[in-house]
Amino acid sequence: MYDMTVIGGGPAGITAAVIALNSRMETLIIAERWGGQTTYGMELEDTEGREVITGETLLDSFRRQLDYLDFARHFDTVTRVVPEEGHFVIHTADDDRFEALTLVIATGAKPQRLNVPGETLLAGRGLSYSAASHAGLFLGKDVAVVGNGRRAQWATASLARKAHRVYLLAPEPLVPTPLAQKLNKMDTVEVLEGATVQQVVGAKFVEGVVAAMPDGQSREIPVKGVFVKLTRTPNSALVREWVDCDSRGHILVDTHCATSWPGAFAAGDVTVVSEQVLVHVGEGAKAALSAYHYLLMQ
Amino acid sequence: MYDMTVIGGGPAGITAAVIALNSRMETLIIAERWGGQTTYGMELEDTEGREVITGETLLDSFRRQLDYLDFARHFDTVTRVVPEEGHFVIHTADDDRFEALTLVIATGAKPQRLNVPGETLLAGRGLSYSAASHAGLFLGKDVAVVGNGRRAQWATASLARKAHRVYLLAPEPLVPTPLAQKLNKMDTVEVLEGATVQQVVGAKFVEGVVAAMPDGQSREIPVKGVFVKLTRTPNSALVREWVDCDSRGHILVDTHCATSWPGAFAAGDVTVVSEQVLVHVGEGAKAALSAYHYLLMQ
Repeated sequence: MYDMTVIGGGPAGITAAVIALNSRMETLIIAERWGGQTTYGMELEDTEGREVITGETLLDSFRRQLDYLDFARHFDTVTRVVPEEGHFVIHTADDDRFEALTLVIATGAKPQRLNVPGETLLAGRGLSYSAASHAGLFLGKDVAVVGNGRRAQWATASLARKAHRVYLLAPEPLVPTPLAQKLNKMDTVEVLEGATVQQVVGAKFVEGVVAAMPDGQSREIPVKGVFVKLTRTPNSALVREWVDCDSRGHILVDTHCATSWPGAFAAGDVTVVSEQVLVHVGEGAKAALSAYHYLLMQ
Repeated sequence: MYDMTVIGGGPAGITAAVIALNSRMETLIIAERWGGQTTYGMELEDTEGREVITGETLLDSFRRQLDYLDFARHFDTVTRVVPEEGHFVIHTADDDRFEALTLVIATGAKPQRLNVPGETLLAGRGLSYSAASHAGLFLGKDVAVVGNGRRAQWATASLARKAHRVYLLAPEPLVPTPLAQKLNKMDTVEVLEGATVQQVVGAKFVEGVVAAMPDGQSREIPVKGVFVKLTRTPNSALVREWVDCDSRGHILVDTHCATSWPGAFAAGDVTVVSEQVLVHVGEGAKAALSAYHYLLMQ
């Protein structure tokens, strides 16, 4: 019986596991791999070396700690979590079975890939999945944002304060929000509804995007940055039947990362939280400490 | 007019300022000094070198960034914050006056010093103000906790899982909680109600505490660690008249660090949150990003 099991190997899960181990809890982290869904570093043509996003170094050291503590990690896919009287039973794809007194769910959200040529090559070289992390690097440049929902709109508004020109490539009509109305009126923002990205162009760094326009024509737009902000789905299926979630599937947590189920805590992109690595680190730490406090009271 | 003013130079405030500057907000951080009230590092007789608490290195680099950006920082005491139509006016002891569209309150909590001989010398050398950060270092050792409230009780319960023996020196009767009842029954915990610490003893590292017992006698208790967990008061006086606080004065925030006043956010020990440096870092980042989102909607 573990004191705590963490599900997920992104920034929130990694931090939760390290904090729990530092608190001398019997801890197991189960992840398909280390990472998290976004690329945190960003290299641009005119920046020297690699622009390391704050927190990346910290997470590297956490990963190394966990690599060293092989008893505390298990690379596998969790297929089922069953809440039992006073503990949780976790089943994995490799038919392993673990028991834990507390649970930290840090399963993230489904990737939001474009799935077009150029995306993989140029990720971290002008192509980003996180405006909160990288928008500041595109001061005075032309950039594109892909998406139509709230996250795409926030990214566009944020970039509009910094970039020279922002193209919002919305495959579907913009979700109607007050911000969408503001974007349509901004001089530096061009909203292209019905535009579908076909390719991200660039030999070494992003040089542009090619989009299919609603009139059937292809248009190449020269940009130095592309922010992919398509709709994401939180990976909450494992617990959705017994933990309260919002209508989009995000796990609902209080300010201490507690879910509606006693002993179950959640952190990171599976909850509603800013997409910034330090925020995820903090939430992971908080979830681990809340689980620890919970344990002390049992 | 600044986009954002941060009040407080601890981990939450420092991180908020750095994240805001990275987001290209016009940012000012006002602090009496860099720091925060606790000592994060801990050196012990039998550990090699200095046990650096996770996050300290990160904060060092943030402080250096802010030292470099002298336009973004102001060392002074904030004496008054006035919420005006759509912005805040901040007055300082040196009669400066600043205006900002958003506010991050990261003013921490009043120190909880023992004010006895040995405390200053031995802080970070066995004497700690944070069980969440340092409890794990005292595996198998004898330690003392000073306090009678919930935080002292949590620290004692947490240490009881690791230390050999825990003395809870409670100057006043324990605040009645379910945990207090459990502590009284634990074999490894000795609750000394009415004991007042007179001195922390040790040449280079903590070797013991001297306490005045209720019977008038002095008792020297040999311990390797002392955790000071006296009652703290959140520094919320600047905003308490117009921002909702709990009965003990903590600023109430939602999961995005928003207070009850639009445009005002809070992070760290002035709110109710785990006393762990990475949690404060995450809360600071979150408050800054929430302020940024708020600004984009104006």
